[in-house]
Amino acid sequence: MKIEYELIKKDKTTGARLGLIHYGDKTYETPMFMPVGTQATVKTLSPEQVAETHAGIILANTYHLWLRPTPEIIEKAGGLHGFMNWHGPILTDSGGYQVFSLAHNKKKDITEEGVHFKSELDGRKLFLTPEESIKIQNMLDSDIAMSFDECPPATADRTYLKNSIERTLRWAERGKKVHQNPNQCLFGIVQGGPHRDLRKWSAEETVKLGFDGYAVGGVANDDEEKEAMYQAVEYSVPYLPEDKLRYLMGVGEPVDLVECVARGIDIFDCVSPTRLARHGNALVWGVNYPKNAKKSGAKEKRINLKNARFTEDFTPIEEDCDCYTCKTYTKAYIHHLVKCDEAFGKTLLSIHNIRFLIRLTEKMREAIRNDAFDEFRREFLSS
Amino acid sequence: MKIEYELIKKDKTTGARLGLIHYGDKTYETPMFMPVGTQATVKTLSPEQVAETHAGIILANTYHLWLRPTPEIIEKAGGLHGFMNWHGPILTDSGGYQVFSLAHNKKKDITEEGVHFKSELDGRKLFLTPEESIKIQNMLDSDIAMSFDECPPATADRTYLKNSIERTLRWAERGKKVHQNPNQCLFGIVQGGPHRDLRKWSAEETVKLGFDGYAVGGVANDDEEKEAMYQAVEYSVPYLPEDKLRYLMGVGEPVDLVECVARGIDIFDCVSPTRLARHGNALVWGVNYPKNAKKSGAKEKRINLKNARFTEDFTPIEEDCDCYTCKTYTKAYIHHLVKCDEAFGKTLLSIHNIRFLIRLTEKMREAIRNDAFDEFRREFLSS
Repeated sequence: MKIEYELIKKDKTTGARLGLIHYGDKTYETPMFMPVGTQATVKTLSPEQVAETHAGIILANTYHLWLRPTPEIIEKAGGLHGFMNWHGPILTDSGGYQVFSLAHNKKKDITEEGVHFKSELDGRKLFLTPEESIKIQNMLDSDIAMSFDECPPATADRTYLKNSIERTLRWAERGKKVHQNPNQCLFGIVQGGPHRDLRKWSAEETVKLGFDGYAVGGVANDDEEKEAMYQAVEYSVPYLPEDKLRYLMGVGEPVDLVECVARGIDIFDCVSPTRLARHGNALVWGVNYPKNAKKSGAKEKRINLKNARFTEDFTPIEEDCDCYTCKTYTKAYIHHLVKCDEAFGKTLLSIHNIRFLIRLTEKMREAIRNDAFDEFRREFLSS
Repeated sequence: MKIEYELIKKDKTTGARLGLIHYGDKTYETPMFMPVGTQATVKTLSPEQVAETHAGIILANTYHLWLRPTPEIIEKAGGLHGFMNWHGPILTDSGGYQVFSLAHNKKKDITEEGVHFKSELDGRKLFLTPEESIKIQNMLDSDIAMSFDECPPATADRTYLKNSIERTLRWAERGKKVHQNPNQCLFGIVQGGPHRDLRKWSAEETVKLGFDGYAVGGVANDDEEKEAMYQAVEYSVPYLPEDKLRYLMGVGEPVDLVECVARGIDIFDCVSPTRLARHGNALVWGVNYPKNAKKSGAKEKRINLKNARFTEDFTPIEEDCDCYTCKTYTKAYIHHLVKCDEAFGKTLLSIHNIRFLIRLTEKMREAIRNDAFDEFRREFLSS
């Protein structure tokens, strides 16, 4: 089912925006954090547990679902919503990111037509094209499909990037041409690496093609390159239409959510809350300035529940958190589960971490509503 | 909180009984299957998901909780119920079974005083006595504690068993003497291996000591020894008082539940539903007579969701099952999760398998209520 974006309010001192996503008779507010269900399941959680975190849109990965169980199976099942029992909106990525970034895809061959690579599951030769990516996403029946773009390596030079943007624009156009699903939005993706002029050019040309929403891609998501990420957003967002959603792909560190909402981003996704959880970590409020970071920059604050100091800690992860985990369980219990490698420990931490990021977006919305976003941002960065 | 057993109805043609367990203002029916939460968590499930299977009592393992997180921690947390968020009844075993059976406890040293062995976690020397077992279970604050008994090896001869029963009786008496918790029931355990006279003697002497309920222990739980298991129950049950609960420890195969309810057992526990789930298996209705079994006997019917034949099977595991899994998900989806080794696949199968055994007990209760238990049993065995 198509989503409709409605801009509600623009912050006066920053680029932050409050918005609504209409989805049938449901409405969701932005800024929004979207949990990731790579294999048609948000790792370690039931859909009910995901819903309890107040999640709106969730993600699923085209690359993984293409290989397994295959789009044919999901289409026969009546689409992703029924298959995985998620009846809120679903966004699928294009598959491009995984094709370009996963280690086993190092031997990929990028041509004008598309990308040749080998399946990680059985070594089978695969070929992903802009048309194929859209066709797969159509079959998955997600609500938002992404254009197939090249994700250039971080080391790419200006000339490489220029050619890559041109190809990505041709791919976006080809994808749009075959996109036939009236019930599915199609988003375009802005590339351009760290270059102001290339970002502007990529954004303007992508907007000319005309999409239902726009993503900022190819941002350096690296602790030492925070400023580069924020700049890439700053260089892209001004050229995007105000009445469309803006999506920053693959970013989910709390400080990045705040900094990129300040620069006009509406929606985010990241595997980090569930990945951190599987390693025993819980996000906690505030930011952390690591002493040894080469380039200084705020990082997330977290605690690792494996730590022996939690053995007798009978308080929740966060006293003022309203998540199921914090309302119900102590750190001592979660510590015990993590030490025993019990699955329920990962579930409890995933619930907390996802709810943490969603609560952060709720606080940002509230701040924008109350003309207090910049104050909130400063307070958060010094907390 | 202490439980009270109330016998409601005795079947006319078999030993089956319909009963009630009163627990504060809650009431549960027997025959009952009790899911196992070894480490203070029913593996891969939240307490809400366990409750949704209509579970009544759940089990926790004294041995495991003694080693980790330790009874001191659980006592400081206010007891097991709050620690693990389970507000129905909890039964703890005595720790004896693990001390005697776990492979790393092969070098145990059994004395009159208790059992010396080494911790599986850190090699620390440990000593478990009847008094210590009761003290630990008191600290855990379970609702039903079990007496510390010797679990003799299956190969034990008559002389060994006789001495073992005598020691177990002395241990039961010592345990009872130190059991001070007015809010906790204490159950005795009948041993005696395959011998009719030893079972009778063990049962009578244990009953003389006087407990709140009785378990049948040391039954051969082996596919090739079904008859021996049923006999051990037959040899023990007639000497147990009618107004007390009868518990068959560690038995959870569907056919064994039916056969042992027919012989007068009220409650069962087993790790099998969650263990089977973690290996991709779902219990399905009916019994299976394996062709190659040395001693014939009915076994559980199950399907393995890893099997490729479920790739495009868009039906639930069981059409008439009312569990969350069967009401919501197809075999194709669970097959996909199992193939991807996603935790939620184990969760869905655990829910189904536990609910399967609980539904089986519900059907048995209904049959006893309607004077149709023997018919139900025959139908089940030929289904």
